[in-house]
Amino acid sequence: MTDTLIKVDLSQSPHTNEQIHNRWHPDIPMACWVEPGDDFKVETYDWTGGQIKNDDDAADVRDVELEQVHYLSGPIGVKGAEPGDLLVVDILDIGTKEDMLWGFNGFFSKQNGGGFLTEHFPEAQKSIWDFEGMFTRSRHVPGVRYAGLIHPGLIGCLPDRPMLDMWNSREKALKDTDPNRVPALCELPNTKSAHMGKLKGEERDKAAAEGARTVPPREHGGNCDIKDLSRGSKIYFPVYVDGAGLSMGDLHFSQGDGEITFCGAIEMAGWLHIKVNLIKGGMAKYGIKNPIFKPSPIVPKYDDYLIFEGISVDESGKQHYLDVNVAYRQACLNAIEYMTKFGFTRAQAYAILGTAPVQGHISGVVDIPNSCATLWLPLDIFEFDMSPGSDGPKKFLDSSIDVPLAPDL
Amino acid sequence: MTDTLIKVDLSQSPHTNEQIHNRWHPDIPMACWVEPGDDFKVETYDWTGGQIKNDDDAADVRDVELEQVHYLSGPIGVKGAEPGDLLVVDILDIGTKEDMLWGFNGFFSKQNGGGFLTEHFPEAQKSIWDFEGMFTRSRHVPGVRYAGLIHPGLIGCLPDRPMLDMWNSREKALKDTDPNRVPALCELPNTKSAHMGKLKGEERDKAAAEGARTVPPREHGGNCDIKDLSRGSKIYFPVYVDGAGLSMGDLHFSQGDGEITFCGAIEMAGWLHIKVNLIKGGMAKYGIKNPIFKPSPIVPKYDDYLIFEGISVDESGKQHYLDVNVAYRQACLNAIEYMTKFGFTRAQAYAILGTAPVQGHISGVVDIPNSCATLWLPLDIFEFDMSPGSDGPKKFLDSSIDVPLAPDL
Amino acid sequence: MTDTLIKVDLSQSPHTNEQIHNRWHPDIPMACWVEPGDDFKVETYDWTGGQIKNDDDAADVRDVELEQVHYLSGPIGVKGAEPGDLLVVDILDIGTKEDMLWGFNGFFSKQNGGGFLTEHFPEAQKSIWDFEGMFTRSRHVPGVRYAGLIHPGLIGCLPDRPMLDMWNSREKALKDTDPNRVPALCELPNTKSAHMGKLKGEERDKAAAEGARTVPPREHGGNCDIKDLSRGSKIYFPVYVDGAGLSMGDLHFSQGDGEITFCGAIEMAGWLHIKVNLIKGGMAKYGIKNPIFKPSPIVPKYDDYLIFEGISVDESGKQHYLDVNVAYRQACLNAIEYMTKFGFTRAQAYAILGTAPVQGHISGVVDIPNSCATLWLPLDIFEFDMSPGSDGPKKFLDSSIDVPLAPDL
Amino acid sequence: MTDTLIKVDLSQSPHTNEQIHNRWHPDIPMACWVEPGDDFKVETYDWTGGQIKNDDDAADVRDVELEQVHYLSGPIGVKGAEPGDLLVVDILDIGTKEDMLWGFNGFFSKQNGGGFLTEHFPEAQKSIWDFEGMFTRSRHVPGVRYAGLIHPGLIGCLPDRPMLDMWNSREKALKDTDPNRVPALCELPNTKSAHMGKLKGEERDKAAAEGARTVPPREHGGNCDIKDLSRGSKIYFPVYVDGAGLSMGDLHFSQGDGEITFCGAIEMAGWLHIKVNLIKGGMAKYGIKNPIFKPSPIVPKYDDYLIFEGISVDESGKQHYLDVNVAYRQACLNAIEYMTKFGFTRAQAYAILGTAPVQGHISGVVDIPNSCATLWLPLDIFEFDMSPGSDGPKKFLDSSIDVPLAPDL
Repeated sequence: MTDTLIKVDLSQSPHTNEQIHNRWHPDIPMACWVEPGDDFKVETYDWTGGQIKNDDDAADVRDVELEQVHYLSGPIGVKGAEPGDLLVVDILDIGTKEDMLWGFNGFFSKQNGGGFLTEHFPEAQKSIWDFEGMFTRSRHVPGVRYAGLIHPGLIGCLPDRPMLDMWNSREKALKDTDPNRVPALCELPNTKSAHMGKLKGEERDKAAAEGARTVPPREHGGNCDIKDLSRGSKIYFPVYVDGAGLSMGDLHFSQGDGEITFCGAIEMAGWLHIKVNLIKGGMAKYGIKNPIFKPSPIVPKYDDYLIFEGISVDESGKQHYLDVNVAYRQACLNAIEYMTKFGFTRAQAYAILGTAPVQGHISGVVDIPNSCATLWLPLDIFEFDMSPGSDGPKKFLDSSIDVPLAPDL
Repeated sequence: MTDTLIKVDLSQSPHTNEQIHNRWHPDIPMACWVEPGDDFKVETYDWTGGQIKNDDDAADVRDVELEQVHYLSGPIGVKGAEPGDLLVVDILDIGTKEDMLWGFNGFFSKQNGGGFLTEHFPEAQKSIWDFEGMFTRSRHVPGVRYAGLIHPGLIGCLPDRPMLDMWNSREKALKDTDPNRVPALCELPNTKSAHMGKLKGEERDKAAAEGARTVPPREHGGNCDIKDLSRGSKIYFPVYVDGAGLSMGDLHFSQGDGEITFCGAIEMAGWLHIKVNLIKGGMAKYGIKNPIFKPSPIVPKYDDYLIFEGISVDESGKQHYLDVNVAYRQACLNAIEYMTKFGFTRAQAYAILGTAPVQGHISGVVDIPNSCATLWLPLDIFEFDMSPGSDGPKKFLDSSIDVPLAPDL
Repeated sequence: MTDTLIKVDLSQSPHTNEQIHNRWHPDIPMACWVEPGDDFKVETYDWTGGQIKNDDDAADVRDVELEQVHYLSGPIGVKGAEPGDLLVVDILDIGTKEDMLWGFNGFFSKQNGGGFLTEHFPEAQKSIWDFEGMFTRSRHVPGVRYAGLIHPGLIGCLPDRPMLDMWNSREKALKDTDPNRVPALCELPNTKSAHMGKLKGEERDKAAAEGARTVPPREHGGNCDIKDLSRGSKIYFPVYVDGAGLSMGDLHFSQGDGEITFCGAIEMAGWLHIKVNLIKGGMAKYGIKNPIFKPSPIVPKYDDYLIFEGISVDESGKQHYLDVNVAYRQACLNAIEYMTKFGFTRAQAYAILGTAPVQGHISGVVDIPNSCATLWLPLDIFEFDMSPGSDGPKKFLDSSIDVPLAPDL
Repeated sequence: MTDTLIKVDLSQSPHTNEQIHNRWHPDIPMACWVEPGDDFKVETYDWTGGQIKNDDDAADVRDVELEQVHYLSGPIGVKGAEPGDLLVVDILDIGTKEDMLWGFNGFFSKQNGGGFLTEHFPEAQKSIWDFEGMFTRSRHVPGVRYAGLIHPGLIGCLPDRPMLDMWNSREKALKDTDPNRVPALCELPNTKSAHMGKLKGEERDKAAAEGARTVPPREHGGNCDIKDLSRGSKIYFPVYVDGAGLSMGDLHFSQGDGEITFCGAIEMAGWLHIKVNLIKGGMAKYGIKNPIFKPSPIVPKYDDYLIFEGISVDESGKQHYLDVNVAYRQACLNAIEYMTKFGFTRAQAYAILGTAPVQGHISGVVDIPNSCATLWLPLDIFEFDMSPGSDGPKKFLDSSIDVPLAPDL
């Protein structure tokens, strides 16, 4: 019987749980301690802490309070870990919770978070995905079924003070260039809804006022949303503080490269079974600034791809200079257009790109002025034949089902 | 015996060959005609038309005349092809030429082309790669050997007049924003060294003055430099002119995602064996703007990856907003740093990222303000163990060999 | 929350559980009923019903009572299923039981069951394998670790009366050719330790006297021990009786092709999550005699193989005629010999071939008089480099640890 | 330009070429010599030396003279090779000859060779397969197309005298058990049509009278017909004589596990590009009796399998004891039956099993009395959907085309 060091009760607010936090700060006390070589389980909330319901109304996605995210389990102290070490994390397994055998994918309103294609999908939409063992399907997106590639969207160690200061100052400099932009350029420290684990009172308030938001990936890893950090992978994290302070959360049942819908992936609560070890002085030995990892030997074999190209000319026809973001957006739009020819709605197609194990490759970045990005759509996930052929596409769906939308108020 | 419709003589200038061209223009006459269903061979020059030699001096890379590139074989007319069709191209095979069993990889000088890491590698360098059947190795980059994933860097159909005009106008608008930038933002039409196939005299001069340069990928495909357009793949190209006018060249023996060194990949002369078919009206039927393709069933199985993360904070510590280019550059720099710990020079590491089948994934593009890109380095290509471990890295090389460099004059 | 239709209590004898049986007979009543389209969980004992302990003494393997095997969960009635249908079973997931996070591999004594290499390993030996999430390792076999490819060794539907009679008569005919052979040629019906589910009294005795033993695979599938019937696979079973009567058990955490050690694989208790559907009249429509299946999209990627050949000349040098069994035995012996050069004992090497996802291919069966079989050993499972090289093998182990052996009494 | 050390002229009899032989004997002089580290090309005849024609008449298959086979290119002497060494052979590439862009698959008459299913296909049949670059298709077997997995069916080093004597004596002992069996149990030395390379006159006659036939695989490798010894693989061969004496031939464009049709695979003439090295004393160091090898990193990705089971109960219902041959035969017959439901003739289905990259696994060999073998049919090779479904199979072909048959005379 493997020990579960951090438990979560989905019927209770995460703010009642002292082993949870939603900001990065070196002063957050360790939630528990382990030895190098230990393996143990950690339970997690979904990233919103239960704000999204299993129903057919996207109002909860529209009205989500983003100051709360992400609820992380930890920090876990590893005895003997010191700054400069590498913390080696084996993800031995990840699973769902018996009382939440479903997940959600959302498009945030452009007014409240947005997403990669927010200009094309400006209003909130939500799809619910049911888990059937290792597989998932959605009543809002018929015609697809896939095996999960379960992974933590967010995992990493506590920053030390200089790193935290660096994060805050560089992000503030960016924010200051356009402070009122919607969607925002970035999210600065904000005490509202901050949960600092065991910290209480003044200490809590002080740390909350400085604590970095959990939204972006940073040097420590953090919210990388890399679909390949899946169960079975082995990750080498930089350590900045004594004890390392490993936290994790934001589990995804499945996700495509880019997590393009932002609320993004199939978001779930669940548990991880992990093992920790140390490489003493590993950061210098290997020249490590950001985490490195080896992917899992166990991943779904969805390798019958149809590949879409995009270049860095935007929707208005404007030429950008080697901009991979623009190119990938075009590749995504090209894929969506293609899928509609088979009967999917545009929102369903977008949801598929966000949740299925699509690949996004940086195919060419030197051929001025156009980058070339490719979107790899695995045809194995579809329940009918989506290949191009001389007969033209067949409409398998009639648009009678769509992804629920909640208009902006 | 398969017919070779276009032959090239590597001992002769490509300008002597009327079945070669190096600009895109609808008036370039077809080099030959085929029927739908035909399969045939096409020979190609290397992209520079033989400017680079098999020696240990990078001066030719430094001094390359980029107005010449890319020498393409074609255009090939396909009977019955009309605007709006999809031209289906099966790449049945690709091979080397018996009299050029080697290829080259170069870093261009920042003064003459540059590359993805040109700030870090501002001067010209060159490595030569020998072909041993399906494999390659380099005397300038010891310790690696890989199977080829041979593909045309450049393939696509002729634009029609409105498309050509659109290309020229949007690129000029970009160029005009900073006309003297080095490296240039883009390359506009330029008659110098233009080769317009069979066009002669005034017609040639007129077309050359308007003909789009072949450097960027565009709607028709073109210089996509997608490593996965490899032998065995099937590509669906938009058709814009009667007869389609398919041209191809810039063969690569192997390349990583992004072709980051620009000269780039392992550049080679060679031949393609292709088959063509049509899907009438396919562009509208499938909603196709850019080419789509299905990858080959035959690719090297190099799947033991070590993965490097990068975020959109640049080398100076400046925070960028969701910029995948910056993030991928950081991932590449992180990988280079790691490789040097095992004894590779920085230039060797850069050459490996450009030539080996590394993958570049757009892993996260919504977590403001940081994109996350990942660089997947296949450990199978190394002749020694490059995994991280508790003992620290072992130096397998002593830097006595490096990639030849030619200083700017 | 998924329903668990059959539960097992590992602390109780399987004979106390009416939803368990260990013989095949059409009169065994359904343990429960489901509808086509239902998904549900089923728990299982290990195949011996708990006879083997997690200790370092192989006496329990030596003394195992084979009349008891295999304890199956079922039969499960599927409403509407009729003879001639195909029962489609999706294995949605398989897992371990929290109170038995380990499994065992055994070599049976030649006096009590034997195995594929029983002439070489005539006495009982046992290794214990601990489960760490999706991975396993053994204190008796250091140097290897692998991800599970969990599957039911035994699964299939109840035979009808004519099929049962056919099984019994053809097996008796074989047995009669050498009734006293050790190991036996086959096992005929035997009331000792027979467990007939809900059947009681006279009915039970009568059915037990006729009920086919569960040891061999037969037309209905049954004890196929196919490592690839793993979680995520989809199987099409012939139906012989109304309601189909699907039973399953003998879970394996991991196994090599052939299950050569007989007790065999890494044997475990656990649970399956399955979904059932029907193809009415499917046996005739598709010409199905034995089950067919599609393998899982999720399997461990252990694909760096070293391959050993064997031909049908036996250990004494005798030439056999196209005998794949002899050839595969030689390939296995060749692999064992090779592994000992790196420090494994012969018993450890044999245990690895039985438990790791090795492949056994029938490579050539027509080149008189020698068959050629190949044994594919995945080098990824070893914690050190087992490739051949010019330096010769390095001994990584010193034989101080071995697989416990219990001599025949 | 790579040197071609052995050339063949397909318009000439192989008996005119002194670098060809068709028997194994230590006295055959080396055809040429190379140094360790050398890479070079070797051309080969098809295994029959041109007896089979590209037409629609199977008479040549029926009447094939099997005393001639197999025509091998070699032996190649490797300087410094001594008995006990391992000869390391890298297959750098394999290709077709421009003047024979086709291959053949045949079922031999039961009166002249037979095959794995000769009781079911007792008469000679032939299909012709055209090569289109890396792909093949057949006018006799519509509906399938596959990439080649090109490999030498036969490759190995010369035996020394004691090994030759052992081969001859053990095979004679087998033959003597039923000397007149049709098909024969094995083929003993036979001077008819023997070709002993450079040996002439009395020496030739003496060696021919003793020379082992090339049909079976043996300790040295030889006619293993392992589809996975494909281009890109690395093989370690035992060396028995000074100089090693490596010979090869019997190229196959593609083949399934077992090469079940005997003439078998898609037989072709062609060339190999190989590199040789030595591991001195490697046989003892690694405990090598038969060759071992590492498969190629480049193989066709045909991994969407439908898997058929077979058990060791034969077509008449007779129970065999753990006989993998019987089990694999049943799996093959089950697959053939299935394929006919989609419109293939039985002969076409048999030809597909012989030529496509099907896998044959020894799935269970210990569950008395039934072995379980599985036949893995890759659905990717079919041009239509061959999956089972609730609607039943669709007939895609109407049997109007079949594999030509030449009745026994």
